[in-house]
Amino acid sequence: MSAKQFLSDNAAPCHPRLWDAMRAVDEADSPYDGDRLSQAMDEAFSSAFGRECVALWVATGTAANCLALSTMVQPHGGVVCHLEAHIEMDEGGAPGFYLHGAKLLLCEGDHAKLTVDTISAVVEPIRDDVHQVQPHAVSITQASEYGCAYRPEEIAQIADYAHAKGLRLHMDGARFANAAAFLGVPAGEAAGSVDALSFGAVKNGGMSTEAILFFDPALADVARYRRKRAGHLQSKGRFMAAQLLAMLEGDLWLQNARSANAAAQEIASACADRLMHPVEANELFVRCTAAEREALREQDFAFYDWGIDAARFVTAWNSRQDDAMALARAISSL
Amino acid sequence: MSAKQFLSDNAAPCHPRLWDAMRAVDEADSPYDGDRLSQAMDEAFSSAFGRECVALWVATGTAANCLALSTMVQPHGGVVCHLEAHIEMDEGGAPGFYLHGAKLLLCEGDHAKLTVDTISAVVEPIRDDVHQVQPHAVSITQASEYGCAYRPEEIAQIADYAHAKGLRLHMDGARFANAAAFLGVPAGEAAGSVDALSFGAVKNGGMSTEAILFFDPALADVARYRRKRAGHLQSKGRFMAAQLLAMLEGDLWLQNARSANAAAQEIASACADRLMHPVEANELFVRCTAAEREALREQDFAFYDWGIDAARFVTAWNSRQDDAMALARAISSL
Amino acid sequence: MSAKQFLSDNAAPCHPRLWDAMRAVDEADSPYDGDRLSQAMDEAFSSAFGRECVALWVATGTAANCLALSTMVQPHGGVVCHLEAHIEMDEGGAPGFYLHGAKLLLCEGDHAKLTVDTISAVVEPIRDDVHQVQPHAVSITQASEYGCAYRPEEIAQIADYAHAKGLRLHMDGARFANAAAFLGVPAGEAAGSVDALSFGAVKNGGMSTEAILFFDPALADVARYRRKRAGHLQSKGRFMAAQLLAMLEGDLWLQNARSANAAAQEIASACADRLMHPVEANELFVRCTAAEREALREQDFAFYDWGIDAARFVTAWNSRQDDAMALARAISSL
Amino acid sequence: MSAKQFLSDNAAPCHPRLWDAMRAVDEADSPYDGDRLSQAMDEAFSSAFGRECVALWVATGTAANCLALSTMVQPHGGVVCHLEAHIEMDEGGAPGFYLHGAKLLLCEGDHAKLTVDTISAVVEPIRDDVHQVQPHAVSITQASEYGCAYRPEEIAQIADYAHAKGLRLHMDGARFANAAAFLGVPAGEAAGSVDALSFGAVKNGGMSTEAILFFDPALADVARYRRKRAGHLQSKGRFMAAQLLAMLEGDLWLQNARSANAAAQEIASACADRLMHPVEANELFVRCTAAEREALREQDFAFYDWGIDAARFVTAWNSRQDDAMALARAISSL
Repeated sequence: MSAKQFLSDNAAPCHPRLWDAMRAVDEADSPYDGDRLSQAMDEAFSSAFGRECVALWVATGTAANCLALSTMVQPHGGVVCHLEAHIEMDEGGAPGFYLHGAKLLLCEGDHAKLTVDTISAVVEPIRDDVHQVQPHAVSITQASEYGCAYRPEEIAQIADYAHAKGLRLHMDGARFANAAAFLGVPAGEAAGSVDALSFGAVKNGGMSTEAILFFDPALADVARYRRKRAGHLQSKGRFMAAQLLAMLEGDLWLQNARSANAAAQEIASACADRLMHPVEANELFVRCTAAEREALREQDFAFYDWGIDAARFVTAWNSRQDDAMALARAISSL
Repeated sequence: MSAKQFLSDNAAPCHPRLWDAMRAVDEADSPYDGDRLSQAMDEAFSSAFGRECVALWVATGTAANCLALSTMVQPHGGVVCHLEAHIEMDEGGAPGFYLHGAKLLLCEGDHAKLTVDTISAVVEPIRDDVHQVQPHAVSITQASEYGCAYRPEEIAQIADYAHAKGLRLHMDGARFANAAAFLGVPAGEAAGSVDALSFGAVKNGGMSTEAILFFDPALADVARYRRKRAGHLQSKGRFMAAQLLAMLEGDLWLQNARSANAAAQEIASACADRLMHPVEANELFVRCTAAEREALREQDFAFYDWGIDAARFVTAWNSRQDDAMALARAISSL
Repeated sequence: MSAKQFLSDNAAPCHPRLWDAMRAVDEADSPYDGDRLSQAMDEAFSSAFGRECVALWVATGTAANCLALSTMVQPHGGVVCHLEAHIEMDEGGAPGFYLHGAKLLLCEGDHAKLTVDTISAVVEPIRDDVHQVQPHAVSITQASEYGCAYRPEEIAQIADYAHAKGLRLHMDGARFANAAAFLGVPAGEAAGSVDALSFGAVKNGGMSTEAILFFDPALADVARYRRKRAGHLQSKGRFMAAQLLAMLEGDLWLQNARSANAAAQEIASACADRLMHPVEANELFVRCTAAEREALREQDFAFYDWGIDAARFVTAWNSRQDDAMALARAISSL
Repeated sequence: MSAKQFLSDNAAPCHPRLWDAMRAVDEADSPYDGDRLSQAMDEAFSSAFGRECVALWVATGTAANCLALSTMVQPHGGVVCHLEAHIEMDEGGAPGFYLHGAKLLLCEGDHAKLTVDTISAVVEPIRDDVHQVQPHAVSITQASEYGCAYRPEEIAQIADYAHAKGLRLHMDGARFANAAAFLGVPAGEAAGSVDALSFGAVKNGGMSTEAILFFDPALADVARYRRKRAGHLQSKGRFMAAQLLAMLEGDLWLQNARSANAAAQEIASACADRLMHPVEANELFVRCTAAEREALREQDFAFYDWGIDAARFVTAWNSRQDDAMALARAISSL
């Protein structure tokens, strides 16, 4: 495609260092996750997060989210999440499948972020009564569906509330890298004390893998069985591990995210008055009319409509500075 | 690993032409299966099979089998299969997950192959009674779990029986290429009139993808939703489509299978009296004592024990002729 | 309990004619639903509804609703219903269980009633896209969760819309009798052209059974298997069939409902200005302060709070006219 | 039916004392299991079993078995049971439904009884490997599907093995009363240290209820939610509790079982040489030809064929001594 791409980060090319890493493990090794690289993942991620974790590769964010939650939520329970969360809106009912019919309990919240207030507004009215689905976990998205980052103290408040209620805490980190890059804090602080994290890689220069990080090994023990049971245990897992380790190597994941974020900031600076949400990651939600969108598309910018009076622009690890500047100018000139 | 590899075909390297094909689509295209290559799969597979089909990529054989069956079997139904079928023995309960608790109805059969007799021995005693799980589909494996190929007429008999009973027919083709290469018939004849085929690629030089072929488009319509719901709709699907199309290009899939089969025949010719099953694909099940296995391993041959008095040797697309001949000699000399 | 009972109809005594009917079938007959009375249900209900149907007994309304829906909705689909529907609010996640994770798609609507407008506001934005759960059925409640009855023309509009969209239509009739009695139309018109109806009996003088009526026999064929699979095929089903047939005999179901409705009207007439919803069945939602509720309870009236500024009163087939008049006077005097 | 009934105990009349007990609670009480009698069940069963337990009513044995197991077995796990167990053979796939696709792991064993040997023959070969379904529980049937009772020491051996392996132990007690009556030991000894017991009542003079006894309250806490979620929480639960309490009152459950057992012994004494299994409860499996069965039916005995060369006779709490003697004579005269 020759257009200036702001459609999504989810189709961007695979980073060259990942290609190299995959080629380097072409030779046969033990199948499934028995290979040398898959076995090295726990240590690599534990080091990156400054906290012991078990890391499993899995092909998609949907599978990562749902497998993680399946270790926390019994079929008769529920997951507290934002009403615009990916698991509610965009996963084709995958949580219903993986959680065997457990229910999503939907909260409000500005910028698609939960707060203790919006969580408790849903949780507190639930009586301990078999007629009502009981919450078993909370899921938050870092960065949120509107590209906003939870600050460490916000996560801490949610984690404290959740754990005090006996609820597990999951973080959908499809764009965790962008949030961590924005926050400028160590990975461990951008995750806080969640029990499991879906660590996104595909939107950040990966080809075909995400990671699930479990900060409680008991959850990982269940997840291994569930991953196989879901047909997500690939026999040549070394190619997935290679991608993830290459991402961590030299903090490539942060470098990629910084590039994408920088491009987003370039554009944001040109349209502050049109922004529907703070730009803290690599997504911009920009108020503009259909005519304005048409004008931008005539200038060869590719992006999605967002409802009837807005557009969504997404930058990626490989967004060209030139394209971002051009888009900034084009929006300014509308 | 420096050993002479006969452990499995499921960890062999990715074929160079697949690497090239993947690199060629690195540039962003439409996400999921909207890219040019994913869209070309139906035509490519229909042409290869001489029969209209819808082709979907999916990461693993387990997912392929279970997604295919999920379009054929209601949760209250059952799947007739061999008691040593992969779906029964090796998929960690994935059929129970994907089929929402539907039951596997187990048949006997030499060489892990079903016949109308062994199928009907299970099906006929089932009364149309709500206390008993009713069969909704039959699943056969080509080549079978013991490396034996169904002849076209055998498939035809099973298909006729199944369809007459109102049952769908699925074929697990994790090693379909090896069976087709052995039979020397067109792909369409090696599949017969099955309703869906799990077309294996990973064991035949692929990296990370299998295909499900649906010969009834109504089943494919369901499968698309179920694939997403299972977290198997990858956003950079073009890398999977690229592998599959490269496999079909110039019949690479058959070439790879012929190489593996030839290596297997080389070995088989040296141990005909020890074979537990005819060698018709790329697996050999060879009677030998623990001491004999030890002797082979001392000569640097890598393989799995098969129970207490046998070994399993598996060749792959890249098995070296030298290694196969060496193994043949080593077995002869036991 | 000696209080004047307006808590619920779901704990009222069993009607004497049902006791008699059960005693009359004490002697052993064929087990499950093979007995004479279970076999007579199709004809009895078809006659009562003026439309061919298949009638299955089942112990609870939750099971009736969920079994009915399980024949209409695939696991990857959804059920359009009101956001205060019983299946959403009060069944402990049973739809998630019975529908294998299918999703409830929630609509607004005054008095907990759906309209084509509120249904289409949910249905129309759903793209035919695997990322979004597709609707497979609509479920409405007659009388609604706020005790309001759908008029035949309202049902016809919804049915037309649903069927034109390829969606099945289910009716939760936990208080169908009260709605039919209020409407004063034949049963068939109070149900309209729904595909299945959960016909309530327990709240209307039954002991332990509801019926599911299927107006499409293909759905009933599936339901029979699902009922057994859910552990709802009782071996002495004759006691359930006896209750249902006794309900139909001489229109006892309508007589009981008329008694309950009359008591509700008695009360309603005394507090028209306090009513939150029209009183069209046997439930009253009455605005009143905590102090007022306290005052009523001191006069020995039993009922539930409804939020912080209202009360819910439910009459039953055996509500005493005296008690209803006393309550009417008490509310008037607040 | 005027025939001499030996078809099944599952359609026999309801015992008069249960009728009386139900009539006595006709007046409204708290709904669901909040009524006085439901609340009294824990104490009554704890007293009967000499061991603290939580007792829940549920309508059928299938629901009792599957709900009990659903508290012990995760969806990715398995239940070790006899290959002729009711949960495997006769429940229409209900375990697949309630356990979300968990697998039944089938064992052999004489008289449909498990032993540590037959259990370990299935359990020990299972590697701790995600490709294989791991056992989470064992289920045994007291009396077995062939009417044979586990001795207390046999249960102890199985319980010790299971618990040492980290497996829960469930007992299907559809005919527990008959086993306890035969063994002549206290209820607690006939159950041994199982974690949950499906306590049968319907086949022993009940109308519409079984009990699940949980000897670990944590399992019961889960079961309460699952019972509602399965549509098995009846709103007039007092009628079910009344049946169960009446069964325990004055050991009616044992009296009824002794009557049925005595009738079975009467018949057994006449055909010892034809018996396929020891007669230890109220079922007889008797070798006899088709012609012999025809002869018996001409004498007005009702029973089921058991395969092609046997018959099954089942006695019930109300079997007439005269009928049993008549059958004994008739078999003797064949």
